[in-house]
Amino acid sequence: MDIDLHSQPYTPIATVCILAPGLLGASVAMACKKNRVAGKIHVWSRHSSTRAKLAELNWCDNVFPTPLAAAESADLVVICAPVDFIIPLYNEIRPALKPGTLVTDVGSTKSTICRQAASGDETNGTFIGSHPMAGSEKTGMAHADPDLFLNRPCIVTPLETSEESSIIRILQFWKSLGAVTCVKTPEEHDEIVAHISHLPHLIASSLCHFLDQKPEDWIQLASSGLMDTTRIAAGDPAMWKAIIESNREEIQRALSKYQDDLQRIQSAITNGNMAEVVSLLEKGKKFRNRLD
Amino acid sequence: MDIDLHSQPYTPIATVCILAPGLLGASVAMACKKNRVAGKIHVWSRHSSTRAKLAELNWCDNVFPTPLAAAESADLVVICAPVDFIIPLYNEIRPALKPGTLVTDVGSTKSTICRQAASGDETNGTFIGSHPMAGSEKTGMAHADPDLFLNRPCIVTPLETSEESSIIRILQFWKSLGAVTCVKTPEEHDEIVAHISHLPHLIASSLCHFLDQKPEDWIQLASSGLMDTTRIAAGDPAMWKAIIESNREEIQRALSKYQDDLQRIQSAITNGNMAEVVSLLEKGKKFRNRLD
Repeated sequence: MDIDLHSQPYTPIATVCILAPGLLGASVAMACKKNRVAGKIHVWSRHSSTRAKLAELNWCDNVFPTPLAAAESADLVVICAPVDFIIPLYNEIRPALKPGTLVTDVGSTKSTICRQAASGDETNGTFIGSHPMAGSEKTGMAHADPDLFLNRPCIVTPLETSEESSIIRILQFWKSLGAVTCVKTPEEHDEIVAHISHLPHLIASSLCHFLDQKPEDWIQLASSGLMDTTRIAAGDPAMWKAIIESNREEIQRALSKYQDDLQRIQSAITNGNMAEVVSLLEKGKKFRNRLD
Repeated sequence: MDIDLHSQPYTPIATVCILAPGLLGASVAMACKKNRVAGKIHVWSRHSSTRAKLAELNWCDNVFPTPLAAAESADLVVICAPVDFIIPLYNEIRPALKPGTLVTDVGSTKSTICRQAASGDETNGTFIGSHPMAGSEKTGMAHADPDLFLNRPCIVTPLETSEESSIIRILQFWKSLGAVTCVKTPEEHDEIVAHISHLPHLIASSLCHFLDQKPEDWIQLASSGLMDTTRIAAGDPAMWKAIIESNREEIQRALSKYQDDLQRIQSAITNGNMAEVVSLLEKGKKFRNRLD
């Protein structure tokens, strides 16, 4: 999809509503404040202890006890809950939204979420999915960072039926937080992240699970290479369970094809075909060098 | 093997010889200088351009045109060449070594090297293998660091026939550079590093090779998680070819068992057995948290 961001003047957002501020949600709010993207920032958290903390934080202008109350006067709502809570939250706030309110999210999978969001009555609110490729194995507001999205990719996933003006507003929003945006269909998005995010996670988790079965003292001999390779395995299992469930087919496909590649290098090593091993290492190195 | 490092007084080393100073060799020399571990540091490099540079560096007291000349007056020789050049270099210097000279290396595999080193005449020089678990995907003297070994593990791999006093001197050497030492047989070492170093490398390289076959623009969407997971794939393919060749059986075993684990998570996902997926993610996370 070709979108000309300059075809529409940038309109500052009067009120942004952040639902469920964890690492990503709090970072969105902090980035909004730092970059003067929103006039007011409304926040809802399901934990009363978090709401008490929020009232003291400079990036939160108003705290609300319910998602509905937080969202009703907002021009843009960003749902920052785990993937399995995004649609329930959207359905909960929908009746209260002003006409023209845009809703987006930060979920790691998009097909199910975007299709379900579009299935109901669209008179109140318009949902366009987003996935900022930022974050870390750390979770929670305590690790939030106003620069989390700076120069990081953010994939925006409209449907065929999404209005271009709405897509542009969502793209402008992420760009104003410093992100580098691109547009994909929800299905393209899910295929891509199955490969570049979910597969690496499962590989790292499996490696840790595998090594966990080995003698205790081996761990003390780990080099920084092993630490890098396995860092993402420290991610929250409950969050990853929801991601895996909501992108199961693409993940299965990616994992199965990756296993073919791994078996190929295993066979080359077994057969002493070192030319093939070196060719694979060289192609891998070339790809990795392009990542930096 | 139980070794009491305090059973023998620490004797400063008059002359340390570094053969083939790349990242590790130059770091050993810099650490020797910084920690006043050696009276003199003798260095040989096979490249005349490197020898010209070495003459200007403060951590190098004398540069020699041949390994033999560099090693002949040394009390400790550290062979820092790639694994496939260690035994050829050892055989080359052996006739020139003073009686009692200790020789060690920094090679990533140990069985073949230590067994071959012990196969010849032991009147000149005694070889005890070492593997400091330090370094990175970067190579070359330019990235050397006197603190590279600080608090990093160093595995020392004597044979059954190695004298305890020699083992202690090698352990004391690495400790004086800041490393945390341990003693393993060469075979134990090779089994361990196949799992905690060689397997992660092959996993990361395969992942890069796999993703290299995907559309060009996917790479721009990579998160820091993918960068961490694949960092080691930027290592030198020629160096890794030699490592894989010299530890083929252990690597095959580790890779095969890891594939079983990966297939197990694939099956659990396919069967919708999310309890097993979560259990695996949780065990992986617990292991990873212990690594930090």
